[in-house]
Amino acid sequence: MTPRPSYTALSAAIGLEAAWSLLDGRWKLLILFNLFGGQVRRFSELERAITGISPKMLTQQLRDLEADGLVERIVHDEKPPRVEYAMTPWGQSLCPALDALLAWVEHKPQA
Amino acid sequence: MTPRPSYTALSAAIGLEAAWSLLDGRWKLLILFNLFGGQVRRFSELERAITGISPKMLTQQLRDLEADGLVERIVHDEKPPRVEYAMTPWGQSLCPALDALLAWVEHKPQA
Repeated sequence: MTPRPSYTALSAAIGLEAAWSLLDGRWKLLILFNLFGGQVRRFSELERAITGISPKMLTQQLRDLEADGLVERIVHDEKPPRVEYAMTPWGQSLCPALDALLAWVEHKPQA
Repeated sequence: MTPRPSYTALSAAIGLEAAWSLLDGRWKLLILFNLFGGQVRRFSELERAITGISPKMLTQQLRDLEADGLVERIVHDEKPPRVEYAMTPWGQSLCPALDALLAWVEHKPQA
């Protein structure tokens, strides 16, 4: 198994650094794993699901994920307006790669 | 597509943080992409292939990768001893996951 030939080592490293920076930190990963599978969540539901996250931190992380195109904010035209969060199709398409990475870490041989 | 049901969001996030820390930094990724595909390289070959890396940095990164079980150091019983570096089978098995992550980053929609 070799990397696709279109990649040079340098372009591959730069691409992976870009992926790392999009997914940096435990809070972002926790938000993503609460939204994978097409789940739609209100702010308060995410807050309850993610133990220890402050409202300020959750707001900031959701804004980052939205700006990076991974998560979308859905505002329902109700009174008061109802706001929900969901993965974008591109964010959703990250799932198999993260699954593969998790499976790899899990299979680390014992030293 | 959903994460494998055996994962909770928290265990997934912790597993991915472990993967991140193993692969941290551009130098490590550059070394890995020079060794993927079963390539075996001498220290001096890696030094030439990776523009800008110092011998000290290359030594340190190779030690880390060896300690983490991704790379193995092969010492040939010659005079003077010949030393080569190669991926371990576990290190090699990372390749499809990194390929999937690279393909994902590449397909980021234009904002």
